[in-house]
Amino acid sequence: MISSETVYTDLEGIRSNSPLVHNITNYVVMNNTANALLAIGASPVMAHATEEVEDMSSIASSLVINMGTLSEKWIDAMILAGKTAYKRNIPIVFDPVGVGATYYRTETASLIIKECKPTVIRGNASEIMALTNSNVVTKGVDSTHSSESALESAKLLAKETKSVVVISGPEDYITDGQTVVSTKNGSTLMAQVTGMGCTATAVLGAFTAVNKNMLEATAHAMAVMSIAGEIAAEKSAGPGTMQMNFLDVLYSLSKEDIENRLKLTYE
Amino acid sequence: MISSETVYTDLEGIRSNSPLVHNITNYVVMNNTANALLAIGASPVMAHATEEVEDMSSIASSLVINMGTLSEKWIDAMILAGKTAYKRNIPIVFDPVGVGATYYRTETASLIIKECKPTVIRGNASEIMALTNSNVVTKGVDSTHSSESALESAKLLAKETKSVVVISGPEDYITDGQTVVSTKNGSTLMAQVTGMGCTATAVLGAFTAVNKNMLEATAHAMAVMSIAGEIAAEKSAGPGTMQMNFLDVLYSLSKEDIENRLKLTYE
Amino acid sequence: MISSETVYTDLEGIRSNSPLVHNITNYVVMNNTANALLAIGASPVMAHATEEVEDMSSIASSLVINMGTLSEKWIDAMILAGKTAYKRNIPIVFDPVGVGATYYRTETASLIIKECKPTVIRGNASEIMALTNSNVVTKGVDSTHSSESALESAKLLAKETKSVVVISGPEDYITDGQTVVSTKNGSTLMAQVTGMGCTATAVLGAFTAVNKNMLEATAHAMAVMSIAGEIAAEKSAGPGTMQMNFLDVLYSLSKEDIENRLKLTYE
Repeated sequence: MISSETVYTDLEGIRSNSPLVHNITNYVVMNNTANALLAIGASPVMAHATEEVEDMSSIASSLVINMGTLSEKWIDAMILAGKTAYKRNIPIVFDPVGVGATYYRTETASLIIKECKPTVIRGNASEIMALTNSNVVTKGVDSTHSSESALESAKLLAKETKSVVVISGPEDYITDGQTVVSTKNGSTLMAQVTGMGCTATAVLGAFTAVNKNMLEATAHAMAVMSIAGEIAAEKSAGPGTMQMNFLDVLYSLSKEDIENRLKLTYE
Repeated sequence: MISSETVYTDLEGIRSNSPLVHNITNYVVMNNTANALLAIGASPVMAHATEEVEDMSSIASSLVINMGTLSEKWIDAMILAGKTAYKRNIPIVFDPVGVGATYYRTETASLIIKECKPTVIRGNASEIMALTNSNVVTKGVDSTHSSESALESAKLLAKETKSVVVISGPEDYITDGQTVVSTKNGSTLMAQVTGMGCTATAVLGAFTAVNKNMLEATAHAMAVMSIAGEIAAEKSAGPGTMQMNFLDVLYSLSKEDIENRLKLTYE
Repeated sequence: MISSETVYTDLEGIRSNSPLVHNITNYVVMNNTANALLAIGASPVMAHATEEVEDMSSIASSLVINMGTLSEKWIDAMILAGKTAYKRNIPIVFDPVGVGATYYRTETASLIIKECKPTVIRGNASEIMALTNSNVVTKGVDSTHSSESALESAKLLAKETKSVVVISGPEDYITDGQTVVSTKNGSTLMAQVTGMGCTATAVLGAFTAVNKNMLEATAHAMAVMSIAGEIAAEKSAGPGTMQMNFLDVLYSLSKEDIENRLKLTYE
């Protein structure tokens, strides 16, 4: 049963073990996700050459694959790293950025799910819907659907792929196809900062590295992201200061912050 | 006739329509330009694979091409996307970063102008001069000429290419080859933050997506950039806080801010 | 003899001459390093295409090579640029990010040292040790050794390569194989921001461009980095605000700041 206690236990686990999270991610957010992982206590590494991704995934505690700025060689690297991580039985978190916006993204997302068998898949509502329904068209990388409307797609996807699926948005839904957990923390300002979704994906890499229960680890990560976003937004005049305050809050997030704020429910 | 009213009308247009701006830009500034587009109310997408740029430009409201960190495949993608955007008659904003610094950049800028027929070209004084005079040598990506000294080059370039041309600097000049508009807002601190010029180019992508009069849209964008820069600089202790304050100000820029600050003249 | 006077003289030299620093660096930190170079008064340029790196290094005052996010074409570019810089006798600063973490990184670091003959090599303790002892394994890009424990490796490396070698960490050690200078300024918060080491490497590019005594230039750069980090940390609530304050402090660092803070010793 997830509670502020279990959330904090995982956060402490990250802070004390500093798990190495191997990221193959997009150019836009690399700096943000590396900084978020450092702020939370993890040790990020970014490496994408086909010559080294197997070696890097071999020493990592988890792998994050994010297809925000795709190209051929990067896809090859994602699949090589994913296969290595799968063999080693370390968690693989996949972010299908912009799936549904172009044929190339839709095909690539399918290929990665098939070849790498991700442990967790996180997207916005439109992306999760596009993964199960080829008629859903995404507007670039932003969602045009409500989180709730994607819930059936998320359950279906979780059953098909045996992954834990996250729909992130004003409310986050986390499901393994049976249980649905939702977190209602956060702030609308989070959507005004580029790569907050990608940052959630990276933070999922840290939580899944320290907790073997994937539904719990995923819910814990999304709770920490949205509570930190909520606290940071209260201190911020706009999306610029929000970016900095978010990292400060992640860095110093306390047990009390989580106890006082957590709005997590089972549906 | 451009006024604080028309500037604000376009800003409102961006905030209410959230146009999708497709960016093929450089690694250094991707995060900044995505954040500036979000802060202003637009929806940025970064995609550069030749496999998908035509699809992405087919759903976008404008295309931004920035050659800051060039390589062969990216040039191919720029041209594919540019041709698609041209056929669809959506605005193409081109930033010839560092043209004149190397032969490769000079050749690439010519090729992109010839193949993509950009609607707007924005550069610093040295870059605009280098586009019309092969004897002008740029020092990396920074200008060593005054904005004024590039005005004749800008007019010539505008006539030759039928683009609106922007020289950005302490004063910005905007010309279609006949009319010249200038904005005198801004702050010297803007030049101490990397990618402020690239951010202006991205913001041009948003304004040209909501106003069909390209001279107006361009002047409006440069006015908003320089007013936001001016307000942000007043609150900033240096280039670090400037970056964050700039995004906060873009996000909350009001009609009054524009009315009270706008220094725009026709020359 | 290094003193707060000599540190400040070089800083003034950068501010008045604005040397062009050509960077071939990693995707994660490009924005940070460009901003740090601007804040300190230098003129950064990032260019990595094999078609242009020789031209760019031909107009630059120094070259920075950082292998944080490697791939084949980038290695080719690093070597082409390095050979050009070596022929022109401009300083080459090399950052062997993550050497020891994968075979590919270890091989690439050796190749770059052999082909480019860097003037300065900067790494964390684990990286410097991995350059001289193939049994040392690095955990991603973070150090798992103390700076002191790497001192013998640094001296050996300096002698073998005729480079000035820097071990950066809670204490920085700078050695040409004979003399060892150390700076004891800084803050633990620096390690919580991604790319602070890479930023030091970039700043080394600026200092070596204005002072021909490489041991001095290197010690001056590390002193400025660590004093700026120390002042910035005192004003910061965490790693987010630290990033911004660090740039503000670099921008406005005064002679008094250096006089009041500098903790530099010869060992």
